[in-house]
Amino acid sequence: MLLHLSTWPEIEAFLGRSKTVVIPIGSNEQHGPTGLLGTDWLCPEIIATEAQKTGDILVGPTFNIGMAQHHLGFPGTISLRPSTFIAAIGDWCRSLGHHGFEKIYFLNGHGGNVATIEAAFSELYAEASFAGKPRGFSLKLKNWWELRGVLALANRQFPVGHGSHATPSEIAVTQWAYPDAIKTANYAPQIAPTGPIREALDFRARYADGRMGSDPALATPEKGGELVAMAAAGLIEDVNAFSAEVAPS
Amino acid sequence: MLLHLSTWPEIEAFLGRSKTVVIPIGSNEQHGPTGLLGTDWLCPEIIATEAQKTGDILVGPTFNIGMAQHHLGFPGTISLRPSTFIAAIGDWCRSLGHHGFEKIYFLNGHGGNVATIEAAFSELYAEASFAGKPRGFSLKLKNWWELRGVLALANRQFPVGHGSHATPSEIAVTQWAYPDAIKTANYAPQIAPTGPIREALDFRARYADGRMGSDPALATPEKGGELVAMAAAGLIEDVNAFSAEVAPS
Amino acid sequence: MLLHLSTWPEIEAFLGRSKTVVIPIGSNEQHGPTGLLGTDWLCPEIIATEAQKTGDILVGPTFNIGMAQHHLGFPGTISLRPSTFIAAIGDWCRSLGHHGFEKIYFLNGHGGNVATIEAAFSELYAEASFAGKPRGFSLKLKNWWELRGVLALANRQFPVGHGSHATPSEIAVTQWAYPDAIKTANYAPQIAPTGPIREALDFRARYADGRMGSDPALATPEKGGELVAMAAAGLIEDVNAFSAEVAPS
Amino acid sequence: MLLHLSTWPEIEAFLGRSKTVVIPIGSNEQHGPTGLLGTDWLCPEIIATEAQKTGDILVGPTFNIGMAQHHLGFPGTISLRPSTFIAAIGDWCRSLGHHGFEKIYFLNGHGGNVATIEAAFSELYAEASFAGKPRGFSLKLKNWWELRGVLALANRQFPVGHGSHATPSEIAVTQWAYPDAIKTANYAPQIAPTGPIREALDFRARYADGRMGSDPALATPEKGGELVAMAAAGLIEDVNAFSAEVAPS
Amino acid sequence: MLLHLSTWPEIEAFLGRSKTVVIPIGSNEQHGPTGLLGTDWLCPEIIATEAQKTGDILVGPTFNIGMAQHHLGFPGTISLRPSTFIAAIGDWCRSLGHHGFEKIYFLNGHGGNVATIEAAFSELYAEASFAGKPRGFSLKLKNWWELRGVLALANRQFPVGHGSHATPSEIAVTQWAYPDAIKTANYAPQIAPTGPIREALDFRARYADGRMGSDPALATPEKGGELVAMAAAGLIEDVNAFSAEVAPS
Amino acid sequence: MLLHLSTWPEIEAFLGRSKTVVIPIGSNEQHGPTGLLGTDWLCPEIIATEAQKTGDILVGPTFNIGMAQHHLGFPGTISLRPSTFIAAIGDWCRSLGHHGFEKIYFLNGHGGNVATIEAAFSELYAEASFAGKPRGFSLKLKNWWELRGVLALANRQFPVGHGSHATPSEIAVTQWAYPDAIKTANYAPQIAPTGPIREALDFRARYADGRMGSDPALATPEKGGELVAMAAAGLIEDVNAFSAEVAPS
Repeated sequence: MLLHLSTWPEIEAFLGRSKTVVIPIGSNEQHGPTGLLGTDWLCPEIIATEAQKTGDILVGPTFNIGMAQHHLGFPGTISLRPSTFIAAIGDWCRSLGHHGFEKIYFLNGHGGNVATIEAAFSELYAEASFAGKPRGFSLKLKNWWELRGVLALANRQFPVGHGSHATPSEIAVTQWAYPDAIKTANYAPQIAPTGPIREALDFRARYADGRMGSDPALATPEKGGELVAMAAAGLIEDVNAFSAEVAPS
Repeated sequence: MLLHLSTWPEIEAFLGRSKTVVIPIGSNEQHGPTGLLGTDWLCPEIIATEAQKTGDILVGPTFNIGMAQHHLGFPGTISLRPSTFIAAIGDWCRSLGHHGFEKIYFLNGHGGNVATIEAAFSELYAEASFAGKPRGFSLKLKNWWELRGVLALANRQFPVGHGSHATPSEIAVTQWAYPDAIKTANYAPQIAPTGPIREALDFRARYADGRMGSDPALATPEKGGELVAMAAAGLIEDVNAFSAEVAPS
Repeated sequence: MLLHLSTWPEIEAFLGRSKTVVIPIGSNEQHGPTGLLGTDWLCPEIIATEAQKTGDILVGPTFNIGMAQHHLGFPGTISLRPSTFIAAIGDWCRSLGHHGFEKIYFLNGHGGNVATIEAAFSELYAEASFAGKPRGFSLKLKNWWELRGVLALANRQFPVGHGSHATPSEIAVTQWAYPDAIKTANYAPQIAPTGPIREALDFRARYADGRMGSDPALATPEKGGELVAMAAAGLIEDVNAFSAEVAPS
Repeated sequence: MLLHLSTWPEIEAFLGRSKTVVIPIGSNEQHGPTGLLGTDWLCPEIIATEAQKTGDILVGPTFNIGMAQHHLGFPGTISLRPSTFIAAIGDWCRSLGHHGFEKIYFLNGHGGNVATIEAAFSELYAEASFAGKPRGFSLKLKNWWELRGVLALANRQFPVGHGSHATPSEIAVTQWAYPDAIKTANYAPQIAPTGPIREALDFRARYADGRMGSDPALATPEKGGELVAMAAAGLIEDVNAFSAEVAPS
Repeated sequence: MLLHLSTWPEIEAFLGRSKTVVIPIGSNEQHGPTGLLGTDWLCPEIIATEAQKTGDILVGPTFNIGMAQHHLGFPGTISLRPSTFIAAIGDWCRSLGHHGFEKIYFLNGHGGNVATIEAAFSELYAEASFAGKPRGFSLKLKNWWELRGVLALANRQFPVGHGSHATPSEIAVTQWAYPDAIKTANYAPQIAPTGPIREALDFRARYADGRMGSDPALATPEKGGELVAMAAAGLIEDVNAFSAEVAPS
Repeated sequence: MLLHLSTWPEIEAFLGRSKTVVIPIGSNEQHGPTGLLGTDWLCPEIIATEAQKTGDILVGPTFNIGMAQHHLGFPGTISLRPSTFIAAIGDWCRSLGHHGFEKIYFLNGHGGNVATIEAAFSELYAEASFAGKPRGFSLKLKNWWELRGVLALANRQFPVGHGSHATPSEIAVTQWAYPDAIKTANYAPQIAPTGPIREALDFRARYADGRMGSDPALATPEKGGELVAMAAAGLIEDVNAFSAEVAPS
């Protein structure tokens, strides 16, 4: 069930049977010569949309702009500052908690978001802790590649050249969902270099075409379809487990 | 051309022929018994996506959460506080301006966003004004119903019962784009009441089912299709006019 | 009754018979070669001060610095950033609401303030909405030229050359109140150009002497006196109507 | 010369002969049974307005809302939070500095403002210090009772019962300027108690009618006139000395 | 009793017999050619640590970075902006208040902190005042040189050349506590100049070696020991008096 | 070399031979029935202080309050909100970067700090990225237990009952450094439970005495000494490697 294609009475009814909502979250940032700028928010959106076709889970709108300051040297990247990101996640969660959602699950598509999402969770919990009150909702972050079976599958599909940015697995997922938007290029080197992540100028100097450690030429729509199927099943399972968690009394 | 389905080299190439980007912006909020929660961000996304099929315009990701505090009494609404909204619009624009976009055009789907988007523009301009520097980009806000011909068409389609929230025109647009998500309900009264907008408790007390002045039963997918066609043509025209504007020397 | 010339027991007594307070709000910014820098905050202050001589309304101190970033290219302009403006309006209203004022009425003298005042209202309402509580007070913004009869009078007085900044109507109001501060100049062109408002450098490049569309030479103290009388009567009427509004139960 | 009754060309001309501007700053807060709510911002406004009649000094609009959180238990008090106050003083000073003012002089009427004005100055200087740049302007804070001769005069006028809040000296100044707004009451005790300042509930519990250590019955308009004359002369002298200060090279 | 060398059950037990906690606060900033960068936070830490050996007072961790923007021209200085400082003091106090501490006593070692600590107190009190609630704790700021007898002793020890920054008294205190870190230098001039404090570039231009009005050569560890003994005794006395204060009912 | 026991000329000289500074960072929070409240900031301070005795590394003051909102249910815990923490780390780094430090190394003692320190780094890098400028310094975070050999040693010392909060390894480090502050208690259960971390009320309900998964009774000063020696050696090695890193050109 997609929240944005539902009415408020439908959400009210859903809350009668579940208190959990899934928010796809990612980033809009360069993904090398052939990866889509939307890759990191499209992947969790694709997987969550697929999952809600078979599982009775509620998927909210996609939080599509994230922590991408290091990619600002490449056109098309849009980034929030961490302080803005924390404020925005806060307002999303306060809104959802206000309606009675007790479990808010972020399905993340960008490794660079992880730390600041956790900081945002801490900011939300701190409000309650300073007030000496229960928060009323629990927060969970899961990267889609950490859903059961996904990383193992990706390792089988891409034993070399997976890398950490503009990876063939994420590009494959978008190829499966948007076959008309598949791009090609010659990569030089075939597998991109690796290293640290700092400010945008430093990043562009280190990673000339934007990739980190990856060979995107390995991606195919078929592999993407396998990944989506595996991740969608894992998501339903993981969301159900989160829903079943009971708070201490 | 959709930014999120493009690569950074494609955006770099686009910047060689245009410095303008269109950002659909809206809100995720209750739209009465039958309107989709995503209506206000789906409408500009639908129109902009349609427009870029025929015009050489660049459409960015949708800014999908807006000024919806007054709807928080209805489940599924997600709102930012104005201060968060201003910060986020600021980061989007600073990112886009960094890449060389000189014209940033927000196609808006939520009347309640207008004031705070203007405030966000002012915050961005103020940075430059206090620094005594040129901003580097111009900002424009346009509500989709203000595009050429659209309001006149809506008035012809819905001479009575249009109202101001959960209107048949916006619902028709989503019906055209998402026919599988068309909902029905009995409305009582058929045309909703009108009045002021304040905090969420006040709003819910005034507008029992969430509508303001509207009769959504008048919406049809066909009328939606007419609106989208009119708006898409108007958008291309308006964006081109914005692109053609020359700054004073 | 002027709040700042009253004692706290007098305000306590006033609250026994009314819960409404009027705050003049404007901006301190250049108004062309002959307009006073204080024009936009003086006008609502003049009108509200006049109105409280005959009506039993309470007028607070003037909020005298507003949204003037675009005028920073002209000496004497003082501007807040929107974020500061929103914070300050918030503290004023929280203070007044704390005392039991249930209707806070801003009489505005600067068109450029409108959007950000509305954003400030939204920030205040959002506090209550996120908390699921009533706000306790209602907020209203009215530009003085929108009070009953005022715009029609101005149109009769200045059928051409009214413009939108450094207008003869606002200058006439200050001429009536501060006859010793009337200034003269030769205007070239007689009627200033019009166009968009962006950052300060852009503004100064477009509007060489600071005026927008206006011919201030048309102003006279007599016309100002007529405008003040009309506006003061309209203000009493409008404030009384606001006071009489009943919240939904 | 009053900035708000001047035009921008007049300020431009003034900047040709002086780089100093005086900003009256105070607070709008309860001043006991007979003191005006505006006392703390009216006093510096009165003194500065008087001073500029004889000295060639430029007086800006009055910053009329200050640090009055402890008085919020008394109706009519309006307070900023320190964070808002710091932001607003910052924007005033950045605006004035932008025009070329190199000396910004705050004539203060509220002891409770002192610490936070100093904090605001520090915030402004810190911007420059972190950037490794000159600030471009110097900031000075002076309480009007610290101008040459004023405190000695007040001690002669009010050898007992001066106190620290709702003092006869500040009330006398407003009596001189606003004789129509003189109020009377019976004070019990004649001289109010003294003690610490904390939050509003604590304050009201300690100081039943709002006064601290003072006997306002001692105030007369004549004494106020003497104080204003002494302070106005002292202000001109002090501003001229500030203007004459030379920065280290 | 040192809070950071205690366990939470020990603090719980302490709260059974006292509701007061002492926080040493200072700054990490240049102190001339021979003064330690930590001087301003080491002094209150040294004194409080000494005091808790004989008095049953609880001393928390040291707040070691303060208002030092003007010293940023000298290597090793670390400064917070006032807005950060206010936020941090706020969180410390909200944490301590949450545990039931009703008296929070800041023993300060840096004159430049005073205004902004007071602003931070005001921000904390304002939270309660706007909410119409009791704050729950009282805040007190005391500079260590203002403890009973200390200034008189310092005046006896250093009748000339004490100055206001990098003073022989504060350097003597650190010499007593850290004899291995005593430094020597030739001073030229022997007594440093005095003047105003503004941004860092201005400061460095005025005060070539960082001292203000002082002759640090006068410091000895023995004098430091005398100062610590006097201050530690004064601290116990002052804290006990603060603990004994009763709020108004 | 300890920055706070050095003078500014000594730091200036150090900058001639190294551009790297080490900042111990931790948290002041409950550590079970026997762990010191300061454990998490004492451990990195102890290790860094030890390391600088043999290696030519510069150790700054300790950042002693961190992300401890979940421990606020236990007396003595002091926490910053993430937004405050990010602001403060930012000011520390901007100060140090201003002096020419090009490598800022945070030696961390609290797992709960990791995400928000990374967010703070991102906020700092984003300033540069949005401005299109080099940041000027690189940031590194290392937990002391991740220094070479430390975790392996801890695993050998504590094959069972190490856990994740109030661990025997961190308690052993403080026992070695502060033998007079060793505490004892009976633990029930001997090994504490494990689970998620949310707001303070939830935490206290899950972890009755504050421990997570640990048996602190296993700690001894001797084991602590071994850990400190291993970590100090690892720190020198790691800092030297960081210093040797060359930025891309």
